[in-house]
Amino acid sequence: MRRIPFPELQSTIERAMLHLGLTPERAALSARLTAETDRDGVRTHGIARVPRFAEMVRLGSVHPQATPELVSSFGAIERWTGNRGPGNLAAYAAMNRAIELAKLHGLGAVALADTTHWQRAGTYGWQAADSGLAAMCWTNTLANLPPWGATTPALGNNPLVLAIPHFNDPNDPSPQKPSTPIVLDMAMSQFSYGTLAAYRERGEQLPVPGGYDESGALTTDPAAIERTTRPLPIGFWKGSGLSFALDVLAAMLSGGRTAHQIPTDPLQEVGLSQIFLAISPTSLGTITELNAIATGAINALHAATPVTPNHPARYPGEATLATRQESLRLGVPVDETHWQCLLDLAK
Amino acid sequence: MRRIPFPELQSTIERAMLHLGLTPERAALSARLTAETDRDGVRTHGIARVPRFAEMVRLGSVHPQATPELVSSFGAIERWTGNRGPGNLAAYAAMNRAIELAKLHGLGAVALADTTHWQRAGTYGWQAADSGLAAMCWTNTLANLPPWGATTPALGNNPLVLAIPHFNDPNDPSPQKPSTPIVLDMAMSQFSYGTLAAYRERGEQLPVPGGYDESGALTTDPAAIERTTRPLPIGFWKGSGLSFALDVLAAMLSGGRTAHQIPTDPLQEVGLSQIFLAISPTSLGTITELNAIATGAINALHAATPVTPNHPARYPGEATLATRQESLRLGVPVDETHWQCLLDLAK
Repeated sequence: MRRIPFPELQSTIERAMLHLGLTPERAALSARLTAETDRDGVRTHGIARVPRFAEMVRLGSVHPQATPELVSSFGAIERWTGNRGPGNLAAYAAMNRAIELAKLHGLGAVALADTTHWQRAGTYGWQAADSGLAAMCWTNTLANLPPWGATTPALGNNPLVLAIPHFNDPNDPSPQKPSTPIVLDMAMSQFSYGTLAAYRERGEQLPVPGGYDESGALTTDPAAIERTTRPLPIGFWKGSGLSFALDVLAAMLSGGRTAHQIPTDPLQEVGLSQIFLAISPTSLGTITELNAIATGAINALHAATPVTPNHPARYPGEATLATRQESLRLGVPVDETHWQCLLDLAK
Repeated sequence: MRRIPFPELQSTIERAMLHLGLTPERAALSARLTAETDRDGVRTHGIARVPRFAEMVRLGSVHPQATPELVSSFGAIERWTGNRGPGNLAAYAAMNRAIELAKLHGLGAVALADTTHWQRAGTYGWQAADSGLAAMCWTNTLANLPPWGATTPALGNNPLVLAIPHFNDPNDPSPQKPSTPIVLDMAMSQFSYGTLAAYRERGEQLPVPGGYDESGALTTDPAAIERTTRPLPIGFWKGSGLSFALDVLAAMLSGGRTAHQIPTDPLQEVGLSQIFLAISPTSLGTITELNAIATGAINALHAATPVTPNHPARYPGEATLATRQESLRLGVPVDETHWQCLLDLAK
């Protein structure tokens, strides 16, 4: 692990994106979104993903110059296609459009078909919350999760994001008083395969059951779950149902694919369906009123008796700002191997 | 357990509601929604809840004649207040209004503050799906769930509903070809206290871990969880975050209360905040196209290798239609005690 100054990280990614055929403006945006992901401590979805993105461009499964397009619209909802361009850029454009629609109509949605991996899901939640909008968005994925009651994958892990804006000081929403939104970013699997591998490599058991072993029993042994390919959906039957419903709704609204139609080779994981829903709380209430509601709920959460003394429960996104500020002050922590791969792509 | 013909069940509930002070039209609607809940096999939230409702009316915490009112609106989103009237009637009116907004704008939302228990969450999903609309709705509740990392309740179990319309035959959407929507109705706790009590009374262990015992270990012993009052959120930290985000978003959009502001006495559980979001898939696609997407996903789910041979994984709501048809054919199964309580209230 080493620390890279944020501007250096961003400009290195930008050079890599230019080499991969993105136009300058789009290379800059993609670099910012990716660098911000590492800056916020979500290292699985930042520069760690750039080599796969590069390989997908090389294989022709991602079209670096393809841009999202409007397909049809009705009132406050629109269908777009990602045209299999870079998924983070399409998602960013879709959330931007949902925000515009929400400013006009109180709420707005973009259903995006035929897109590619959007990298960090939470990116689009922060995007909305930093604009003062609430948002809900989700994507489907290739099938990597057995539904409840089955042993073979038929569900995606379909990350879901909820974002709620919150300013420390509504009278001074400046960078000195940063926004502290609530941003939930959760996949429908209890642990990703990446997380299972990380636990196995460290020789550790999972903190809670994460799937089934060969005898069909729940286990905290990551290697056993890797062998059975039976990771758990969150909440057992509940997350299984939620994953399925999110998948079908995204495909129906976008006119796109459901999980079972997406190739199972990660290098061919394209044709994803995504939903971006933005809601304007300030169309109904004042910032002062809205902030008081969020602050009251946060204070009540913090007041719950902690399991570990002096470690109160945290709200989704709470830890992010501290990580972000540390990254900006000391440099962004990156894995040495990932950094070398990125340097190679940026040469 | 005995079976009561559906019309008799409905008319008995209706008499009880009239005695409790509901106007004839509202008593009839409340009776239908409650009878349909038992008809669909959700016995915890049908007539089982009528005695508590009656007691809340008697105590003045639910106002039987209060009706929901528009507070403010902006485009496709509206704020309403439930005025602490019967929660199922307010929720039904709110979803109806969200459906109207969605027909006008493609999507629409009603944020409802100061309402009371809506009984079966799924009711409002079926309501939307039977009208050809997709929907997402949720409610907050009194705090009954410790957040991840804490031992005292600070979260509601905040049931969440996703509903997706689906007709067997788009050319014949008649009662002979019933709608088979996908309707997910899930609380954020892995097991409710009612479910824990039912397992304990049967002397059974839970099928999966449901909370913590006195030593702080995960357990499948329902009695231990009742003693610690530490049931699990679904997906551990994930459901904890989702419950919190749903709570804050419902309160902010409705201008209402978050979980910590709701009295913890179930007989005083009023002032709830709820969201009703309806989306019109047919504003973007044809019924044939939409149905093909849902059918394809359902077929893929059914094709997954089942844990128990010949028992394929099911989609949310799949079992409901069979239960419903059996109830209509043979009578609605009701608990003898609940039925006698209802008869007393209907006298």
